[in-house]
Amino acid sequence: MNHHFIVLVSLSIFFSSSNLYAQPGGIAGSRPYEPTARQIITEGLKTTGAYSLLEGLVKKTGPRLVGSPEAAKAVEWGRKTMEDLGFDKVHTEPCKVPHWVRGLVEEASIITSDGRNIPINICALGGSIGTADGGITAEVVQVKSFDELKSLGEKAKGKIIFFNRPMDRSKINPGEAYGGAVNQRGAGAVEAAKAGGIAALVRSMTMQLDDVPHTGSMRYDDTIPKVPAAAVSIIGANLLDSLLAVNENLKIKIRLTCQTLPDVESANVVGELTGTEKPEEVIVIGGHLDSWDKGHGAHDDGAGSVHVIEALRLLKELGLKPKRTIRAVLFMNEEFGLNGGVAYAKKERPGEKHICAIETDAGGFTPRGFGVGADSVVFPKFSQWSYLLDPIDAGRITRGGGGADISELAKLGVITIGLRVDGQKYFDYHHSDNDTIDKVHPRELELGAIAIAVFCYVIAQEGI
Amino acid sequence: MNHHFIVLVSLSIFFSSSNLYAQPGGIAGSRPYEPTARQIITEGLKTTGAYSLLEGLVKKTGPRLVGSPEAAKAVEWGRKTMEDLGFDKVHTEPCKVPHWVRGLVEEASIITSDGRNIPINICALGGSIGTADGGITAEVVQVKSFDELKSLGEKAKGKIIFFNRPMDRSKINPGEAYGGAVNQRGAGAVEAAKAGGIAALVRSMTMQLDDVPHTGSMRYDDTIPKVPAAAVSIIGANLLDSLLAVNENLKIKIRLTCQTLPDVESANVVGELTGTEKPEEVIVIGGHLDSWDKGHGAHDDGAGSVHVIEALRLLKELGLKPKRTIRAVLFMNEEFGLNGGVAYAKKERPGEKHICAIETDAGGFTPRGFGVGADSVVFPKFSQWSYLLDPIDAGRITRGGGGADISELAKLGVITIGLRVDGQKYFDYHHSDNDTIDKVHPRELELGAIAIAVFCYVIAQEGI
Repeated sequence: MNHHFIVLVSLSIFFSSSNLYAQPGGIAGSRPYEPTARQIITEGLKTTGAYSLLEGLVKKTGPRLVGSPEAAKAVEWGRKTMEDLGFDKVHTEPCKVPHWVRGLVEEASIITSDGRNIPINICALGGSIGTADGGITAEVVQVKSFDELKSLGEKAKGKIIFFNRPMDRSKINPGEAYGGAVNQRGAGAVEAAKAGGIAALVRSMTMQLDDVPHTGSMRYDDTIPKVPAAAVSIIGANLLDSLLAVNENLKIKIRLTCQTLPDVESANVVGELTGTEKPEEVIVIGGHLDSWDKGHGAHDDGAGSVHVIEALRLLKELGLKPKRTIRAVLFMNEEFGLNGGVAYAKKERPGEKHICAIETDAGGFTPRGFGVGADSVVFPKFSQWSYLLDPIDAGRITRGGGGADISELAKLGVITIGLRVDGQKYFDYHHSDNDTIDKVHPRELELGAIAIAVFCYVIAQEGI
Repeated sequence: MNHHFIVLVSLSIFFSSSNLYAQPGGIAGSRPYEPTARQIITEGLKTTGAYSLLEGLVKKTGPRLVGSPEAAKAVEWGRKTMEDLGFDKVHTEPCKVPHWVRGLVEEASIITSDGRNIPINICALGGSIGTADGGITAEVVQVKSFDELKSLGEKAKGKIIFFNRPMDRSKINPGEAYGGAVNQRGAGAVEAAKAGGIAALVRSMTMQLDDVPHTGSMRYDDTIPKVPAAAVSIIGANLLDSLLAVNENLKIKIRLTCQTLPDVESANVVGELTGTEKPEEVIVIGGHLDSWDKGHGAHDDGAGSVHVIEALRLLKELGLKPKRTIRAVLFMNEEFGLNGGVAYAKKERPGEKHICAIETDAGGFTPRGFGVGADSVVFPKFSQWSYLLDPIDAGRITRGGGGADISELAKLGVITIGLRVDGQKYFDYHHSDNDTIDKVHPRELELGAIAIAVFCYVIAQEGI
């Protein structure tokens, strides 16, 4: 794109949305809160506040696996950051969390029928037991579904079960593609054991062709024997698939040293701008402070954690005093049991009423709008504000939404809302060493914080 | 984000838009072309067609500065690619283009008053003359505007003029921020010379903190002496700014070996799906084949070039036969004179009528919609189709838009349209060594091609 052209028409080409500001409807009154939204947008974009917060978190903690010393440091970071920014009533709220550790060794290799030993990149799935000291060596059998596994009968017994159904890339929404594949990760170990298998090896949950394994949680069933479960990188999975086609009796050796230690005490971090008129009416804005022990946990969910801190910072910086309370909550252990979300919802808060809760846990990408879990009567109370978000192309307010951490609040009848962002890259990084801060764009991250600040502020002023 | 949650609600959180498919309005008839749009979306996403094309272009040519052997190779690549894909009436249309060459040396250093010599990263601006063989060494004076330069009077004479007004990051649209700074690049040399300066050094047009210079075109005025002009990286510009604050008589040495050679013959590449019912009515879809001689020219405008080829490929692959002609044009020399755009518009095409032209020249990022340069009477003929693009979140069809290459068609009364994409990263890469193919996401790129395919197909079927 050359400069003569862009100077002439950049406004109309790139920027049609913000021309709304200049429309006759833009005057205060007919489009209330428009000047305020503009203030928040300008204040946010002029610096890189959210990104600086994320740098602070990442430098202080690195990845923050629940129960780890790094997660404890993250709690301290969250508390101190909110205090330093002058938020109201900053405190932590305790919750007990699991403490699974990866251990020092996780390795695997393919042993071909002609005797070659080919290392592949794997990692234990969260919650998995380890292998025996010397590892497991066994023949491998590939399946694409649990039904296919069941149909194998005796052939699965004593084998390592390789679950290799890819995410369906023809889906527009990578989240839907993920949803169509991830039962292999969550339930693979149980299904493998039911079929007589001795371990589960699962294709990483990504559409990216990369060589890093993507971890994530798995679960056992106390009535079924526990077998180890690991993720293999896409390149490793594709190699294994190819070699299986030409090798009979292909074996894999897996060694994992992960284990589950006793539960530990951890906490949510809470701070707010207390409402000036109806402080007892609360809007929660939340992300989760824990991450997997891979990369930096930058998009998942460092981004969400700093989104909500930055949203409050922007309101405070501009001297905007909400009539109702806006409360930022950094939840502990979204990834591995929702202990923080449960603890927050269960805690007695006499006199308080939560009018809605907004979660951001889809990464620090450009925001597109909000998904609102409200019925058709209440929904327009939220969607009416889309014009305030249209200038940053984040005005698509749609029905249905929420978040894992606030799902316990939803059970109590609180309206839950999820920030929707541009999702095409999310699973490239998700739960892997690729989820590092350099994958986060400062302005895209800031726009997410801005979207939350605008939306929660107008809800705090107008209620529902 | 954990998997239990996402499996339950991924549709509603990430994917609210595509739920449109399931709405009662989704039946054929009430929402025409919806099944066709869905076919195009699914076909596009299941492979990485656009990205594979871009890999082909980049491997074949690298960057493609107008007039260069690489640009000639790109023309050949475009023609052969369209022929191999079986498009109709594939041909080239000649145009004469300028041939500026960067030369082997472009270097600069700051010479401090205490005698240090600090190299900084610069590059010649496109069209600049070179320096004398030994380079230019002179004191430097910093200005933020042409008015400030004028106010310097005698102090500017004999100096190197350092134009250091940054892009305003508080603007939502980086294109607007660019528009507010780029006159320093385009007109800096002329203004420097008017003030008695002997060279122009311009802060790179990016908001990213990086150390690569971002080039782009500049222009001379035949009535004003020509002085050399170069861009300096942001880190170099910030350093120079800091050193100027504490150094009197700071000097810079610049050496450039760029020069303008005689014009050469080049060409646009044209291929189409000829209309089955009204072949004489033409919808142009275009990007530009030339790029700057930095990086790969991947986003600017390799992305646009492959967008339009891929759009036709998708329609052809699905057996969709447009009633009106859809013509892909790879324009030559958008960056440096619009020769291809002018030649296309001037060529006699007896019996043909262009009903609209769509340009894609904002990068291979996630599409958001189209900007349509039509009046309020005709605009609804385009905006009525937004529901077909909503499933990929690209349904914001707004007034005002076009593109540089099709601006000559606009002068002839043709309705011009620009693809709008997520623009926050565009100037991070623009015109620099950072504009490489690894910055392009295969699915985001594909979605741009899909958006164009859907939009041009429905226009081809329904007309305006």
